[in-house]
Parts: sequence; structure tokens; C-alpha cells
Amino acid sequence: MDLFGKQYHEPGTMPGTLSESIPAKYSTLLVDYDGQSYTEEENPIPEQCKAYIDSPSITWIHIQGMPSGDMLQQLSECFGLHSLHLEDILNSGQRPKLDIIDQQLFAIINLPSVINSTVTVHQLGIFYFDRMVISVCADQANPFPLIYERLRKSTGKLRQRGADYLFYTLIDTAIDHGFPVLEDYAERIENLEDQLILKPDASLLNDIHQLRRELLLLRRRLAPHREVINELLRDDEANAISESTRIYLRDCYDHTISILELLETYREMTAGMLEVYLSSQSHRLNEVMRVLTIIATVFIPPTFVVGVYGMNFDRSASALNMPELSWPFGYLFVWALIIGMILGMLMYFKKQRWF
Amino acid sequence: MDLFGKQYHEPGTMPGTLSESIPAKYSTLLVDYDGQSYTEEENPIPEQCKAYIDSPSITWIHIQGMPSGDMLQQLSECFGLHSLHLEDILNSGQRPKLDIIDQQLFAIINLPSVINSTVTVHQLGIFYFDRMVISVCADQANPFPLIYERLRKSTGKLRQRGADYLFYTLIDTAIDHGFPVLEDYAERIENLEDQLILKPDASLLNDIHQLRRELLLLRRRLAPHREVINELLRDDEANAISESTRIYLRDCYDHTISILELLETYREMTAGMLEVYLSSQSHRLNEVMRVLTIIATVFIPPTFVVGVYGMNFDRSASALNMPELSWPFGYLFVWALIIGMILGMLMYFKKQRWF
Amino acid sequence: MDLFGKQYHEPGTMPGTLSESIPAKYSTLLVDYDGQSYTEEENPIPEQCKAYIDSPSITWIHIQGMPSGDMLQQLSECFGLHSLHLEDILNSGQRPKLDIIDQQLFAIINLPSVINSTVTVHQLGIFYFDRMVISVCADQANPFPLIYERLRKSTGKLRQRGADYLFYTLIDTAIDHGFPVLEDYAERIENLEDQLILKPDASLLNDIHQLRRELLLLRRRLAPHREVINELLRDDEANAISESTRIYLRDCYDHTISILELLETYREMTAGMLEVYLSSQSHRLNEVMRVLTIIATVFIPPTFVVGVYGMNFDRSASALNMPELSWPFGYLFVWALIIGMILGMLMYFKKQRWF
Amino acid sequence: MDLFGKQYHEPGTMPGTLSESIPAKYSTLLVDYDGQSYTEEENPIPEQCKAYIDSPSITWIHIQGMPSGDMLQQLSECFGLHSLHLEDILNSGQRPKLDIIDQQLFAIINLPSVINSTVTVHQLGIFYFDRMVISVCADQANPFPLIYERLRKSTGKLRQRGADYLFYTLIDTAIDHGFPVLEDYAERIENLEDQLILKPDASLLNDIHQLRRELLLLRRRLAPHREVINELLRDDEANAISESTRIYLRDCYDHTISILELLETYREMTAGMLEVYLSSQSHRLNEVMRVLTIIATVFIPPTFVVGVYGMNFDRSASALNMPELSWPFGYLFVWALIIGMILGMLMYFKKQRWF
Amino acid sequence: MDLFGKQYHEPGTMPGTLSESIPAKYSTLLVDYDGQSYTEEENPIPEQCKAYIDSPSITWIHIQGMPSGDMLQQLSECFGLHSLHLEDILNSGQRPKLDIIDQQLFAIINLPSVINSTVTVHQLGIFYFDRMVISVCADQANPFPLIYERLRKSTGKLRQRGADYLFYTLIDTAIDHGFPVLEDYAERIENLEDQLILKPDASLLNDIHQLRRELLLLRRRLAPHREVINELLRDDEANAISESTRIYLRDCYDHTISILELLETYREMTAGMLEVYLSSQSHRLNEVMRVLTIIATVFIPPTFVVGVYGMNFDRSASALNMPELSWPFGYLFVWALIIGMILGMLMYFKKQRWF
Repeated sequence: MDLFGKQYHEPGTMPGTLSESIPAKYSTLLVDYDGQSYTEEENPIPEQCKAYIDSPSITWIHIQGMPSGDMLQQLSECFGLHSLHLEDILNSGQRPKLDIIDQQLFAIINLPSVINSTVTVHQLGIFYFDRMVISVCADQANPFPLIYERLRKSTGKLRQRGADYLFYTLIDTAIDHGFPVLEDYAERIENLEDQLILKPDASLLNDIHQLRRELLLLRRRLAPHREVINELLRDDEANAISESTRIYLRDCYDHTISILELLETYREMTAGMLEVYLSSQSHRLNEVMRVLTIIATVFIPPTFVVGVYGMNFDRSASALNMPELSWPFGYLFVWALIIGMILGMLMYFKKQRWF
Repeated sequence: MDLFGKQYHEPGTMPGTLSESIPAKYSTLLVDYDGQSYTEEENPIPEQCKAYIDSPSITWIHIQGMPSGDMLQQLSECFGLHSLHLEDILNSGQRPKLDIIDQQLFAIINLPSVINSTVTVHQLGIFYFDRMVISVCADQANPFPLIYERLRKSTGKLRQRGADYLFYTLIDTAIDHGFPVLEDYAERIENLEDQLILKPDASLLNDIHQLRRELLLLRRRLAPHREVINELLRDDEANAISESTRIYLRDCYDHTISILELLETYREMTAGMLEVYLSSQSHRLNEVMRVLTIIATVFIPPTFVVGVYGMNFDRSASALNMPELSWPFGYLFVWALIIGMILGMLMYFKKQRWF
Repeated sequence: MDLFGKQYHEPGTMPGTLSESIPAKYSTLLVDYDGQSYTEEENPIPEQCKAYIDSPSITWIHIQGMPSGDMLQQLSECFGLHSLHLEDILNSGQRPKLDIIDQQLFAIINLPSVINSTVTVHQLGIFYFDRMVISVCADQANPFPLIYERLRKSTGKLRQRGADYLFYTLIDTAIDHGFPVLEDYAERIENLEDQLILKPDASLLNDIHQLRRELLLLRRRLAPHREVINELLRDDEANAISESTRIYLRDCYDHTISILELLETYREMTAGMLEVYLSSQSHRLNEVMRVLTIIATVFIPPTFVVGVYGMNFDRSASALNMPELSWPFGYLFVWALIIGMILGMLMYFKKQRWF
Repeated sequence: MDLFGKQYHEPGTMPGTLSESIPAKYSTLLVDYDGQSYTEEENPIPEQCKAYIDSPSITWIHIQGMPSGDMLQQLSECFGLHSLHLEDILNSGQRPKLDIIDQQLFAIINLPSVINSTVTVHQLGIFYFDRMVISVCADQANPFPLIYERLRKSTGKLRQRGADYLFYTLIDTAIDHGFPVLEDYAERIENLEDQLILKPDASLLNDIHQLRRELLLLRRRLAPHREVINELLRDDEANAISESTRIYLRDCYDHTISILELLETYREMTAGMLEVYLSSQSHRLNEVMRVLTIIATVFIPPTFVVGVYGMNFDRSASALNMPELSWPFGYLFVWALIIGMILGMLMYFKKQRWF
Repeated sequence: MDLFGKQYHEPGTMPGTLSESIPAKYSTLLVDYDGQSYTEEENPIPEQCKAYIDSPSITWIHIQGMPSGDMLQQLSECFGLHSLHLEDILNSGQRPKLDIIDQQLFAIINLPSVINSTVTVHQLGIFYFDRMVISVCADQANPFPLIYERLRKSTGKLRQRGADYLFYTLIDTAIDHGFPVLEDYAERIENLEDQLILKPDASLLNDIHQLRRELLLLRRRLAPHREVINELLRDDEANAISESTRIYLRDCYDHTISILELLETYREMTAGMLEVYLSSQSHRLNEVMRVLTIIATVFIPPTFVVGVYGMNFDRSASALNMPELSWPFGYLFVWALIIGMILGMLMYFKKQRWF
């Protein structure tokens, strides 16, 4: 995930300017359905879409990938989309939000996904008005295969209910994509915790830091969902969400909160892990230094003693000059002294529990 | 407690899908009572339960363990339960919540329990509508033995009052299960604090970290209760809680807050303990290193001195070459010098309070 | 102060169960007064109290100590007290709260006191209804001697005003008991701060930790007072507090906030002290280690030098073998070399400001 | 600034008791003005003040210093001041607040001032009612010289507008006294930051800690101003502030927020400085220890080598016993070995960037 | 950015005093436009501006630089600006705010800009009333070149819409200036992160600290924008913003939040970096110390051994005195002993993973 992760125009540019920041590459799928009928149309041109405006059935146009400014412009002319929203779609990295203009709702949802432990976040923009839902997902992989399956079966709730339920379904699916991501994080944290106990080496610090960085960035991208869903639930302006769909939306709200609480919990957990890592590292070093210092300390006084008897005082000059050297048991005495010193120190250190 | 601890369907699955995540294993107990009569029925089939719908007495169906999807489906058909709620019951690890649909209340409460200092949290789902309470507890042990006892006695308040009081009683009992858990934590913290002063060894770090981890996870599971009870207290929609029960509910709210405040206090306490542990550890190491370094330091200058008189300068070449070696008191002088050095250093270190 | 500090019944016990957790031991004082008359009655039985119910004068029954369940039961029958409140009184360690049932107010206030720098918190329960105030204080020492004095004088405001003013007075007095406690803490903190500068030894760490622990626990016990007084001030339900008393209550609210802000300030202050202590400790150790290491470092190279001239190379084998040993000024040269090395190092270290 | 900094009566004392905590010492200045006339009267007795009550002009009585209880009592009788407010004035260290009783407003504002980098906070109490403003400032120096000047000029806004504008002006002036104080802190912080880079010695730790302590205490004293001004702005009760004065009050509110935000910013800044100081200290120590340890390490192996050739093995006993000693180039070989060792180690350390 | 960064008058000065804090230096550009016409006038005198007051077209007067008090005074007389606002313009470093007086809106926005990685913040004051917008930007460089371009083209939205849209456009442009600044910070953070892994030297600490300081100060300057835009969106008083402009303003609000969230994220990120830096530094030192200590430790026992055989005990005095010296293989034995000791220790250390 990028630190800045946002595309923007030069300050002062006209709002709603549709310049393409990355090359357009997209496919479109139009689905028109009601309880009885179901039509699918691949890559329709905007003109073709227009035909569905007044149909009593529900129409869902899903654009996968990054559309071109031209195409959006044409869509906007067909359906009266606001240019600010089109700009938001072209400039990825927007903050999730809900915008209600008259009877038209526009939501931006961030859709996280994890592939090989790499988390990416893609932007999903959804328009909903009348009996029409238009969604644009900047990711390459379509996040809605299960929705198509459910739509194709004539019996599902999705076919029976209105466009607001489709709108909810898309948002809910996008938000639920957070669960596998968080499950992956939980696994990574548990792995790191195991490593922390079994084999705490230096690379762990970077792993923990990397994890915290990702959780921090991910939280920034997902936290505004709480407001978005909350606004949808309140929504006293457009009155676009029916009472029965609202029950499902409340469930979706709970999921949003769950995800954010898990993120927060994981962040606090990694902070705790960092503390444990740091203190276990310093503890380990201390152990090493202690043992090494004890070895050195134990040998320094004996080294002094043998130094003493390496002095060259002239024993012939005086009987007081190093008489020990000619004691018959002098050498043994020195060894006894040295061994005594070493044992004494070791016992003292042991008693003090220094090793 | 699990880090992720949540079961969920693949994003895009139809909401309310009742797939069983763990094998069903449950027992059912139906109780039907009013001020006068009391009936108990073990493991009734849903059909049997249906008979009690229109009775003027209060009916409580308690399912202990994990019910099968089929059974829930049948219950739902009898009593008109919402499929989202049934899904919540099958997928444990839900966030505590209160859902009010028309006159039907559905609450999820997390029920913590402690056995041998191991804390587990189980999910309790409670439906309440009309004169009917249905509860499903995922734990193996029934948390409500006292409730049955109170019901069997015809004199208790429980028999006199409505189903809302039963609903309250179940929630209150579940929440009060937090107190023994917290008492257990208090004991563990006090034990750790004693250990911190008497015998601060390395295992303590892991114990403290483990404790913080548990308190963190437990808080995540219990914190939403505050909202749940609060919503119940406000509840201007369904108006399902009578004024006299509300007084008891306020008491229950106080308990919820008490539990959360205690959790928070314990968390701050363990943070303080960690600080004290770390600084006492580093203090202890410092003591060791200081003493060891003092020993080494005291012997290094004398070692230099005896090294001096171990040199082999040719005294015959010049009278200036190590004349000390032939001094009659040379050896004694060196000893005096060495002892003087050692005492001098020790006194200086003592004066500086270095040991 | 206790970490858990709460008495509770087994989860599922009937709310309002009056089992005695500690042996009952109490004295009762009934005071009945208005602007003109004043009656005092010691240890009246509940039956006697009943006589005062319908009197137009104000009646205050104060129970000092822990009453028995029986006695509370009788009181409840006389005055219609709610069993939940009686349970709260018997189970000390409740969270401060205000409960308004019809026209009856029940408040729990925590009354801190400090004796010989030991802070204890006792629970004060106060009922107020009609022209009646009943208070129960779990402490052994009566916190209201000044109130009695003021009541006995016929001129004071207390005699002129209603029971709501008495209710306020008891709460205010209980809350104001926080000031001497906080003053005591301020003194302890200032003592610790002095010690921190003059004589920072290891015991200080425990003192600071102990202080933080106490402040943390005390905050948990006192913080809910803010809500209690706030609720009393709002109180649009019972309308039990007259406008003129409300002015005094606002003053009491300010005191509550003052106390909590002081507690918070002290907590942040002790956190700062801990940081200063830890870094001063590590600074002191560093000083010691630096000096010791400098001493060792200064003597190690000279020790090498004297080692060189202690070698036994056979000077007769070659003129290149240690010719220095037979130089006339060899010994002096070595001393010069050694002293030069030592001075050189010391000067270098000095210049680097290493000591 | 004092840690506790509050005067209070024994808990249970009658509210509004006017006992003097410090000896009274004060001067009074009465100013009576309207657009046309201006009268000044020094040290009037309360009786004299009474004459101005019903005058259509605006009257401002300012008491500088600590008034006596008697004098306040007389004032109270003249103007009907509430005894709680008089008590607040006598007991300095109150929390800033706004009290509205009928049409009488009473505000307590904390007035910080800085003399020679010593910050003190004095309490300012202001009554405002009708066309009357009474202010009592516990400081010795009058904070309002500029106000008198502005009043004396007949042209200023102050003379044209009502008493609410005077009330605002006093509050605004008191709050604006925070700016020079904060500017002084900014300077101190910048000085400390410079010192941190140029000469980070041990005294800095105490300076930073002292600074944080002061900022913490100052925040406690000034933070409630936000509420006070906010309440004045809302003030739907007394309606004492005219619309045109409210515009100025909003400006004053911005100043209050500015001051609190600066305080908060400075506190976070000092926290950052502490971190930098601690890590720069530990970095510096580490540098020293590293160099010292390198010196010791470089000389220890050579010392071992020269020790080897200081051994006294009997070369006559065997040709294997230290044959090096009689090599013609033995001594040079040892020097070469030693120099080689030292250079080798230094190069290795250099390559590892250890110095 | 300055720590205090605020200009203010002496406390007690008359509000709205227009003393110039820095020498006036400014240029003025008046633009008058509607859908059809477009007029530009450079450096008009206030008298000239007056002519445009009653014109039905929209008039925008932009003052770049710091105007003189006189000039502002004249402007104020022409257009009835409030003296408090003029004072705010002259005293830079004000807190961003929105002031609504009757139908006149006055906003202060902080305009950050980055030149060569140096961030500066300039104050932008904007008046909006009727069909009039007056803006004063304290910076030297005009931040609105794109706006002029858009105005000159007759086709843009800007020309078609009212003065409220111009007002919005200026605020939006100023706020969007935060994006390049934050992008620059993101780059700096990423650079520091790279350095942290590749080459973590001591200068990094200061860089990180400097970065945190800047982010802290920048947050203080930009955070109030949230309130400003929020107030504009609510604005039920003046009703000065049309519904269609409000849609754009909501977009601007999202940008404000985005900027603050990014600032917050960056601050937390730098905190993480500091932790990683400190622990990597201490880890690196520990590595060095460990290796050095191992070298010393490995050589100390052999040095003791060779010391032993450097003793001068008189072998003639007793056969027990150092018989090893005359062993034929004594010397080899000692070497074997020493090499054995060294290898033994190295193997032990290796096994313990100490190097």
C-alpha cells in the first residue's frame, strides 16, 4: 500500500475535470433482471445502456478496470451522473464516502484483497438511482462472481427485491472482503508471536514494523466505511433504502465495526509484540554480556596473582624479596590460592544468582 | 481466546445462508410458565413448540450447544425468525448487538467463563417477542441453572413478571458472568505483582504479555455490551421493555460499565507492571555489571604494576635499570603499593556510592 | 484499595437478594427538623421511624456502618425502598450512580478518606424522597459531624431549606472529602520529586509505581461522580431539586471536575517522574561504567608494554633480540613511554569530554 | 505553580462561608462612565458604591488584591451577590467557570503572567449585572492599565457600548495575557532545542521535565476557559450579551482555543525533545563505550602474545621448549606478529564501521 | 514554521486596532465578470472598487501580499468590513475560522506550500457578501493563477455560477495546496524509511525528529479547516451557499479530512520509525559490544595460563615447583592447552549462538 496513495489535480483545476491518470482498460457487463426475466450483455456501448433506462426491470452496469474519460462522459450524458463523481472514479485513492444528490446515491468503498500475503486496496464506486445501479471497480479481478451466480438463479432474494438491495449487496460484498484480509493478518500475527518465543532474531523487528505500517495504512483506508454505512442507515433525505433492506444494512454495519475493531486490536497487539521483542532482545544480550563478563572477572584476579610471582625481585638482595619463590610448596600454594579465588568468586556469583 | 475468532461466509454469499460451520450438537429445554402453572419439556421438536405460541403463559425455549441448520430453519418457520439472526447463531464470534425488527428483539451477548484460569467466551443469542423467549448458547455448560431454580419456585419475581423480565434476566445473568472472570484476573494480577517484587525472573515478561493480550481480546468481546444495553434502555421503537423492568436493566447497565472499567483499569495496571518489570530487570543487570566491572577495574592497575617488575631489563647494563629489584624491601614495597591502590580505589568507589 | 473491590452474587441470583457479605454492625441516628424545631433520636427501630413519615418537618435517618439485611428489609417496608438499592447498600464496591424511580432518588457516592497516608474509599448510599433523607455510610467514622452541628444551630441555611438541600449537603460533603485526599497526594508527589533530585535510589521506583496504582484505582472509584451530579443537575424527570439548591449543586459539580482534573494531572505527573527516574538511573549507571571503563582502558596498553619487556628472548642468540633490555636508560624509557601513553589517553578522553 | 493550588474549607462547612485564608490587602477603584461623562473614585467604601446602582451610566468597581470578608459582605448586601461567589473569590485556586443566576453573571478567569520566566496564575472574579461590573483580581499588579486609558478617552468604542462590552473586555484582556506567557514558553523551548543539538548535558533533562510539569499545570488552569466562553456565547438563559458584543466574544473564543492548542503542541514538542535527549545521551555513551572497548580489545591479544614469550620453560630440557626465544629474529618476529594483529583487528573493525 | 507563529497586540488593546506588524507590500487585482462580460483592473484604488458594488456582475478583489492599514481602512469604508476581520488580516498567524455577520462571510484559511522541501504556511483571508469576494493572501506568490485562466475563458462553470461558487473555489484551491505538501512529506518519509534499512546513522534521529516537529506544527495550522468547512456546510444563518455549490463544498470537506488523516497517519508512522531507529541503533551497538567482548573473553584465560608459566618459582628449592617447565613437551602442552581453551570457548559461544 502506498503512503500517499491518492491522485489529484493541480490545486485550482476545475472540479470534475476528467483527465485520465492511468491508461484506460476495462470491460463492461450489463445485467437487466426482475423476478421473471434475466438479460446479460457484455461490453455494451453507453448508447445501448440507454435503452434500459425506462424499463421497469432493474439494470446493473458493472465496469471492471479503469474506464476512459470519454466513456464516463457518455455514461454521464445518458444517466445524468455528476462530474465530481466521475472525477472521483478516475482519480483512485479517494476517501470512502456517500454522496446523495437528489435521488441519486454515490458511494465510494475501498475493497481490500490479499494475494500471497500482499494486501492491496482498490476503489469501488457505485451509483444507485431509480432502478439503476452502476458500479466501477478499479481492480483487475472481478469481486462479484458470486453475485452473478445468485442473480442467474431466478429463486434468490436478489431477484425478488429492488435495486436498493442490489446496491446493499455490492457494498456488503466489498466490505466483507475485509474478513479474509484480517484472517490473513491474524495468521501473520500468530506466526510472529510463535517466532517471538522460539527464535527472536533481528529480522523480526522489521516484520513487526512492516505489519504495523500496513495495519495503520489499512485502517486509514477502511475507517471511513463506518460513516458511509451510518449515513446510509440514517438517510432521511433521499429515502432510497427500503425498510427491509435496512435490516441487512445494519448487519453490514456490524461487519464494518467488527473489521475496524479487529484492526485496532491487531495494532495494539503488534505494539505489545514490539515491546516483548525489544525486551527479549535486550534480555538475551544481557545474558551474553553477563556470562562473558563473569568469565573475564573470574580470570582477572588470578592473572594478577601469577603476575606477582613473575616479578624479578632480587632474592639475593634480601630475604624479604619474594621468599615464596623458594618455598618447597610455593607453586602448589599459588595454584591453591588461584583455584580458591576462582571457586570463591563462582560460589559468590552463584549465590547472588548472577548465572 | 482466538485472535480472529469469527466465522464468516465467502464475501458475496447470500445473507442468511445457514451452512453449519461446526457439527451440530445440542439439547433443548422448553419451559412454559405463568404465576400459577409451570411446565417443562425436554428436547421438544419445533412442531411441539408451536403449540405454545398462542398460550397466554410465557414460553422460554433454551437451546444449549450448537443447533443444526435444519432445526433452526424449522424454528424460524414456526416463529418467524429472521434468517440473518439464524446465520448469526450458526456463525459464532459475532459482535454483541441488539436488533429490533417490528416487535421482535434479537440480542447477541458474549458470555465469558473461566475454568482453571483459562478464559473462554461463548456466544449467547436471545430472541424475545410477544410472550416468547428463545435463547441459544454455544457453550457446553448451561449458564442458567439458577434461573431454572427460581422459575420452579412459584413465589419468585420471575414467575410474576412478563417475558421482558425473563429476557432481562438472561442478559443480566450472561453479563454478570464477567464478574468471576474479572475476579480471577484481579487475583492473577496480584500474584504477578507479588512475584514482581519477590522473584522477578524472565518468565514474568511472558506472563504479563499474555495477560495483556487476554485483556485486550476480552475487551473487544465485551465492550459492545455497553451499546446493547443502552439501546435496550432507550428502545423507543418496539417499546418492548416495561417501565418496572427498565429499573433492573439500569442496574445491569451499571454492571456492564463496571466490568469495562475494571478491564480498562487492569490493562493500565499491566502496562505499569511491564514498566516496573523492565526497569527492575535492567536495574538488576546493572547491579551485576557494576560489581563485576568494579572487580575487574580494581585488579587491572595492580596487574600492570606486577607486570612492571616482571620486565627483564639488564640491571648490569646500568644502575638505572630497575634498581627496585635489588632493594631489600622492594617486594614489600610493591605489595604495599598494590594494596594501597586497591584500597584507594575501593574507598573512592565507596565514596561515590558505586557499590 | 482493592483491585477488584466489589461484592457480587452468583450470576443468576435474584436481583435484590439481601444476603449479608460482612457482619452487620451499625448505629442509627434520626434527626427531625424544620426552621423551628429540632429532634434527635439515637438508634430508633424502623417502627419508630415510621412515625415521622407524615410529619411536615424534614427527617434524616443516618446509618453509620453496615446494616443487617433484616433491618434494611424493615426500613424498605416502612418507606417503600427498592430492593435493588438495598442490595447495592449491602454489597459495597458499587459504581457511583443516581437512580430515579418515580419521586424517589437514590445516589451512591464514594467517600474517600486518608489516614496516615493510607487512602480508603467507602460507599455512601443516600435515599431522598418527599421530606425524607436516608443515608447509609459503610465507613466506621461518621463523615458528617459538621452537618449535625450546623443542624443544631437554628439559624443556618440548612434548617431553613428543604430536604433537597440536605440531600445536596450530604453529597457535597462526601465529594469534598476528596480534597484532603488529593492534598495528601500532592504532598507525596512533591516529596517524591524532591527525592528524585536529591537521592534517587531503587525504592523510588516502587513508590512511584505504588502511587500510580493508587491514583488509577482512585480515579476508577471517583470518576462516575461527574455523571451522577450531572444527572442530578439535568433531572427533568423527578424535578426533585429546587432551583435555588441547583446553584449549590453546580458548585458541587465544579468540585467534582476539579478533583478529577487533579487526579488526571497527578497521573500524568507520576508518568513524567517515572521517565525522569529511569533516565536518571541509567545516566548514573552510565557515569559509573564510563569511569570504570576509562580506568581499565588506561591501564591495558601499559600492561601490554611491560609484558613486552618481560619476554625472555635470548639476547645472546642475536643482537636484534630485545636490545632495549641492555640500554642504560631502557627502564626509564619504558616508564616514560608508559606515562606518556597514560597521559596521552587521559588528555584525549578529556578533550572528548568523556570524563 | 503549585501542584494542589487550591484553598478549601473542611468538608461539611456551610457553603458560602467567608473565612479569610490569607490576610486581606487590596485597593478599590470605581469608574462610572457613559458616552459623555466619566468619573473615577479611589477606594470608595461600599456605601459610596451604592449611590451608583440606579444611575443610567455604567459602573465598574475593580478590587485589586485580596479583599477582606467584611468588605465582600458589605458589597454583597449592596448589590445582592451570591455568597458562593464571594467564597470563590476568597478561596483562590478555583476552576474557571461561568455562573448565571437570574440576570447576574459571575465568571472566574485564570490570569497567567510571566515575570523573569516564572509563570504565575492569578484568579480573576467578575460579576456583571444590569449596568454594573465588579471585578476582583487576586494579583498584586493591575492587569487593566490599558482599559483605564481607553475609558478615559471619550472616543473609544468602550465608552459607547454597554456594560456587556466592558464585561467582555475584561475577560478578553485576561485571556490574552496567555499570549505573552506562551511566547515566553516558545522561546524557552527553542532555547532548549538549540541546547539539545549543541550541548546536551544532564541538566537538560531536568529543564525539559520542569517545562512539561509547568505546561501540564498551566493547561489544567486554562483549559476550562473554553467552556466558560462557550457558555457565554450560547447563553440563552440570561440573554445578557448583545449580538454586537457576541461577535467580539467569538474572537475571544478563537484566542482561547489558540492558546490551548499551542499549549498542547508545546507539550507534544517537549515529549519529542525528551525522546531525542534520551536517545542522544545513550548514543553518546555508546560511542564512548565503543571506542574504549575497541582500545581494550586491540591490546588484549598482543598482551597474550607477550605473555607467551615471558614463560620460563626450560629450553635446556628439550629443543621443543620455546625455540623461538633463541631465533635470531625472534623478537622482531613477535613485534611483527603483534603489529600485524593490531592492524588486522583495526582494519576489521574499520571495515565493519565500528569506529 | 515558527513555534509561536502568531502576531498579537498587548492584552487590553482595543479589538480591531490596525497597526501594521510588517511593512505593507502588496498588489491588487480586481476582476468583474458574469457569463458574458469580463473586466480586469490592476491595482485599483478603493474608490475605483466602489464603482462595482451595485453592478449585477460578480466582483473579485484579490490582494496579494500584506496590505497597509490605511488601504484596509478605506476598503472597510467602501464595503463595510468588520474591524476585527481587518485586524486578523494584518496580524498573520490567526487560527482558521469562519465568521458570519449578517450576510457577510469571512473565512481565514491557512495555505501551505512547499518549496525545496521547506514547508511554509500563509494566511488567506476571504470576505464574501452579496456579489462580492475580497481575498487577501499574505504569501508573495499568487496561489490562484489557474483560477484567472478559468475565469478568462467564457465557457467555464466559474463564469456561469454565482459568487458563492467563486468563494468555494478560492477555499478549495487553498485547501488543495495541502496535497502537494503531503506528497512531499510522503516522499521524505519513504526516503527516511529506505535510509533506516540501508544506512541508519545518527543524523537520522534529527531528521525524524525534525519531521515530527513539522507535522505537529502543520497539523495545528490545518486542523481547524475541518470546522470551517463544516460550519460553511451547515450554515443555516446566512444561507449564503447555494445547494448546487454545497455539493462541491462536500467534496472539499472530504479533501480536508483526507489531508488531516494523512497528517495523522504520517505522525504515527514517524513514531514507528523512531522506535525502529532506536532499536536498530541499540541492536547494532549490541552486536559490536558482543563481538568485542567475545574477543576479550577468549584471550583472558590463555593470558592467565601464560602468566602461570611466567612465574619464577625456584625449581631448585623443590621438585614440586613448576616441574612443567622442564618437561620436554611442556611448551607444546601449554600451546595445546591454550588452543584447546580458545576453541572450547568459541565452540561453546557458537553453540549458544552468541556470534
